[in-house]
Amino acid sequence: MNFIPKSDNFESRVRDSFAQQKVMQTFSASLGKIAPGKVEIILPFRDDLTQQDGFLHAGVISTILDSACGYAAYTLMPEKANVLAVEFKINFLSPAIGECVIARARVKKPGRTLTVCEADAFAVQGGAEKLVAAMQSTMMAVLDR
Amino acid sequence: MNFIPKSDNFESRVRDSFAQQKVMQTFSASLGKIAPGKVEIILPFRDDLTQQDGFLHAGVISTILDSACGYAAYTLMPEKANVLAVEFKINFLSPAIGECVIARARVKKPGRTLTVCEADAFAVQGGAEKLVAAMQSTMMAVLDR
Amino acid sequence: MNFIPKSDNFESRVRDSFAQQKVMQTFSASLGKIAPGKVEIILPFRDDLTQQDGFLHAGVISTILDSACGYAAYTLMPEKANVLAVEFKINFLSPAIGECVIARARVKKPGRTLTVCEADAFAVQGGAEKLVAAMQSTMMAVLDR
Amino acid sequence: MNFIPKSDNFESRVRDSFAQQKVMQTFSASLGKIAPGKVEIILPFRDDLTQQDGFLHAGVISTILDSACGYAAYTLMPEKANVLAVEFKINFLSPAIGECVIARARVKKPGRTLTVCEADAFAVQGGAEKLVAAMQSTMMAVLDR
Repeated sequence: MNFIPKSDNFESRVRDSFAQQKVMQTFSASLGKIAPGKVEIILPFRDDLTQQDGFLHAGVISTILDSACGYAAYTLMPEKANVLAVEFKINFLSPAIGECVIARARVKKPGRTLTVCEADAFAVQGGAEKLVAAMQSTMMAVLDR
Repeated sequence: MNFIPKSDNFESRVRDSFAQQKVMQTFSASLGKIAPGKVEIILPFRDDLTQQDGFLHAGVISTILDSACGYAAYTLMPEKANVLAVEFKINFLSPAIGECVIARARVKKPGRTLTVCEADAFAVQGGAEKLVAAMQSTMMAVLDR
Repeated sequence: MNFIPKSDNFESRVRDSFAQQKVMQTFSASLGKIAPGKVEIILPFRDDLTQQDGFLHAGVISTILDSACGYAAYTLMPEKANVLAVEFKINFLSPAIGECVIARARVKKPGRTLTVCEADAFAVQGGAEKLVAAMQSTMMAVLDR
Repeated sequence: MNFIPKSDNFESRVRDSFAQQKVMQTFSASLGKIAPGKVEIILPFRDDLTQQDGFLHAGVISTILDSACGYAAYTLMPEKANVLAVEFKINFLSPAIGECVIARARVKKPGRTLTVCEADAFAVQGGAEKLVAAMQSTMMAVLDR
């Protein structure tokens, strides 16, 4: 689906907000492609973000998928809106191991108040991508801030 | 509900596994109370784990709730089992701000393969607790490891 | 938690709206206890609502849990509001078999726009209750209708 | 993604099991296209399955999406397996009104024990389709029955 953003500067707004998410710097995460209704976040594999088996922790995967969903929704929100996560659901499909994980989020249904998104996380190893998690989430536009 | 653990050393098994979750050290998270079917994890507020508004990131809250659910399930699993997250759903109820966040998980329905858990996260500020998130999750016992 | 309803007639508003949910009559479902932030719905076991193994279909259980959550939220909404389901998540814990199923919903966090609820479904057989499903859901107050 | 079914007769197995889901007859629901990892179910609009505003009840939409997911997973299961819903999450995107609703489910990740599916529901009105709900679910293969 093709979405029409409500502001021309949606990409710089995403980059500005992402730069303020200190957890993204702590995780060494970076933004990938940004388009209306679509955002990618890349997380390099880091041993200090793993669970007991040496895989990236489920919550760490959730963190980049949640931010990717939030910013996918944010690209379609009016200029003065802020975005907050209402809820998300995530299924873990394979262990997250490799060189990095790419979170790819897209808006499923934009709305004035609530926007529904979905996102997949892929582990990249030796040039191959493997689906490791899938998220379905609800984001909320908060105005007057 | 009162649950009967399948091994006497459920508490030391939780502590051993938790010590191997490197992300918990990265987050400065620690275990609280451990009982059959119930586990607490405490996360001190850290500015480097926040989102754009200065609140703890939704994914960070998810991380400690997910581990708390996993270990709540783990207390009831046989000695040789490992635990993996199948999926979880989380609602965010209030911004996570304060001195620390406590994740409290409990088993809702134990099972041989799948265990369903629920967990709440409370932000502690000035001695008062405020509910900030609620999770419902499915954990899987993986044998033969 | 004790909630204070925004209107005195919350119970009659629930009963009026429930009477307009034609699917509830089709299912022979009825309202049980109603209190601020809490609603019960009772569904007699009916062979024509089963899946391939003779258990009540997961979607049928979802239907009464969703309505119970919606009305639990509705008890705390202002008089002119309507209530709509934003989303829900449900885990199925045991096959739903017996004389009837009772859905018990409670508000977890009320809000001006969004209310988060949780609900359990219990199958009743020979006087004993067994937990068969657990839901966590988000309801929305729609004004000006 | 293209999936390879474990049995040649996956379509007749789906049709046989669907015929045993009495709730599908009660709802006048029917099977649409069946392919490896993909199943459609069509529900004609029926006034006796509505909620208080005259839209199809969220739980009714959930019922056909859940069955569509279950049968999408079932097409990839071995011949002697039965399929059970572990859990699902559903977002409601628009009111379900029109001539009928089509549930389209696809397997996202097949597995020996657990299969993750996703599904969309579209309301059909005057020849146009509108997305009304999105589901993400976990199905379980139960052997030895």
